[in-house]
Amino acid sequence: MRVELPVIVCMFMAKGKKYLSRVVKIGKLKLGGDNPVRVQSMCNTDTRNVKATVQQILAMEKEGCEIVRVAVLDMAAAKAIGQIKKKIHIPLVADIHFDYKLALEVIQQGVDKVRVNPGNIGSEEKVRSVVAACKKKKIPIRIGINAGSLEQDLLNKYGATPQAAVESALRHVRILEKLNFKDILISIKFSDVSRMIAAYRLLAKKVDYPLHLGVTEAGTAFMGSIKSAIGIGVLLEEGIGATMRVSLTADPLEEIPVCWAILRSLDLRRRGPEMISCPTCGRTQIDLIGLAGCVEKELKKIKQPIKVAVMGCVVNGPGEAREADIGVAGGKGMGAIFVKGQVVRSVKEDQILPELMKEIKKITRKAK
Amino acid sequence: MRVELPVIVCMFMAKGKKYLSRVVKIGKLKLGGDNPVRVQSMCNTDTRNVKATVQQILAMEKEGCEIVRVAVLDMAAAKAIGQIKKKIHIPLVADIHFDYKLALEVIQQGVDKVRVNPGNIGSEEKVRSVVAACKKKKIPIRIGINAGSLEQDLLNKYGATPQAAVESALRHVRILEKLNFKDILISIKFSDVSRMIAAYRLLAKKVDYPLHLGVTEAGTAFMGSIKSAIGIGVLLEEGIGATMRVSLTADPLEEIPVCWAILRSLDLRRRGPEMISCPTCGRTQIDLIGLAGCVEKELKKIKQPIKVAVMGCVVNGPGEAREADIGVAGGKGMGAIFVKGQVVRSVKEDQILPELMKEIKKITRKAK
Repeated sequence: MRVELPVIVCMFMAKGKKYLSRVVKIGKLKLGGDNPVRVQSMCNTDTRNVKATVQQILAMEKEGCEIVRVAVLDMAAAKAIGQIKKKIHIPLVADIHFDYKLALEVIQQGVDKVRVNPGNIGSEEKVRSVVAACKKKKIPIRIGINAGSLEQDLLNKYGATPQAAVESALRHVRILEKLNFKDILISIKFSDVSRMIAAYRLLAKKVDYPLHLGVTEAGTAFMGSIKSAIGIGVLLEEGIGATMRVSLTADPLEEIPVCWAILRSLDLRRRGPEMISCPTCGRTQIDLIGLAGCVEKELKKIKQPIKVAVMGCVVNGPGEAREADIGVAGGKGMGAIFVKGQVVRSVKEDQILPELMKEIKKITRKAK
Repeated sequence: MRVELPVIVCMFMAKGKKYLSRVVKIGKLKLGGDNPVRVQSMCNTDTRNVKATVQQILAMEKEGCEIVRVAVLDMAAAKAIGQIKKKIHIPLVADIHFDYKLALEVIQQGVDKVRVNPGNIGSEEKVRSVVAACKKKKIPIRIGINAGSLEQDLLNKYGATPQAAVESALRHVRILEKLNFKDILISIKFSDVSRMIAAYRLLAKKVDYPLHLGVTEAGTAFMGSIKSAIGIGVLLEEGIGATMRVSLTADPLEEIPVCWAILRSLDLRRRGPEMISCPTCGRTQIDLIGLAGCVEKELKKIKQPIKVAVMGCVVNGPGEAREADIGVAGGKGMGAIFVKGQVVRSVKEDQILPELMKEIKKITRKAK
């Protein structure tokens, strides 16, 4: 049974810092509260192209995507939602700007969440109709604030600051709360990490709705991953955030492993095996980069969350390998294979990979 | 003039959170205090191979490496330090384990910093001789704690915890302080981000020496970059850390752009242009991934820290592009080019790249 604590009590509890939001359901998936931080991404297909969109979503599911969003630009895209829903297995979110008719249509089509800013869809009557439809179908709304499209009066008052973005979010929140609608999620994205962090921190003090974390327009796969890892990582480490999207100017499939890497780095969630491996240095006497690459590739075939260490030298190697479920510490043209802290055997360099994988398979078979 | 504040005053000042350490000099480079966070890496060449090592260091310098470390495993490597020093332009650090004679030799050879744990080199007499040599040449010592090689009594008492690592660091610190040596830097690395963060936070409360940040054995380029970005990023955001190394099981040249990306993400330092670019979505009507890749490549030739926006659509595009020095917001088969918030012109898709670069060159020429 979930007990809804009053907002002030929830704000900073558990280890003295956990921001415990209320729980919102997207399809069958619960977000917020003490639920796991959820991974999401967004299609870059034309939503009207059902086949291409479904194909991309199924590929995303395989990578570990748990919620997927599609852009709904026109009525044809809105009407495609029902067909897409039938062929996928994760909750579907429609991204809508300005047009309340599109919102009503996707809700009718069975979408699981709508991302729409109620302050941008016109008259109170239009807002009421969307909110009524969401209430009827128990569909949450995500308010999505983006530093690039803040209201002019807020820009004049505050500049493009965290304060302006939070005030903008709260305006939309108040519209929904006035209609007694509280199935809300909020994102408040900036393209720079410092303001993004500041905005979410500020927002987390003001509301108890689950927060959707992201750095917007983060950049290419390299820069975007680093920016997202820091921005999202800092907030998750403080207990802020119920779900995340890593935005990359890249194939959206690339966004999902970054999300999982962030969650794993902070020991929040795991998916598949983890490998630690040392940087090579003047002490390394085996081809460690090659070996680590091969092991990483082989580990993709394994689903259990085991910890594997691939270490180049004897200085830190055995110590680190001891903490792993299994590991190898390289010596001069050889490697010492460890299992649960015990040396199993030493093997020649060309036998390290097969022998390591043999031991890994033993462990994972036992774990089944 | 630098004023040395007492430790307690320094601990959490400036914006209520900046951890202001004492200042230590490595060669001509100052670290700690309010100096910029320094970028470092480590060679993976055989240090005895002077030519290969120098070649790698010169390549690192080009990438923006500011301090470089080499492993010194034997006397031949120690004797190579002088020759290496002559041919490079950044401070050189020798990484030494156990053997005080190697430390004395690298100091003699003119090394700029020694990474050695005084508690591991034997008798007090040996420690005294190393400390005396460092004092004479004004060379700092980095105490490098690694979770993989903690003392057995500390492991028994605390397990492989942040507490154990901090206690281990303080033992080495006390040995040096007893000899009135305070030119100290400290690192305290774990392969997992959560313990790494906890250890540095704890250490930052106990000492005012500049801290060298890093996640050890972070993994391959992908996972290692994410782990390092979060671990180092969380600490830098709190004001902890004077220098950093990103450890990757990869070519060490790859470590340096990750360091710079972390510093840029947190607005701490900049090197060259910055590009923001949006994730593609169903709204994108130009080949944005291709365009962003081309722009990123072209920007590598430019040194000025300009901000360039490459945006796919009109929803957030113009807003974000307005914040950039220059930007493009894509439409249907075309792009609107902005300079300092003003649309300069709209061009066909195949003209976006050359026209954008033309405007960028105008700006950077003016800035020279």
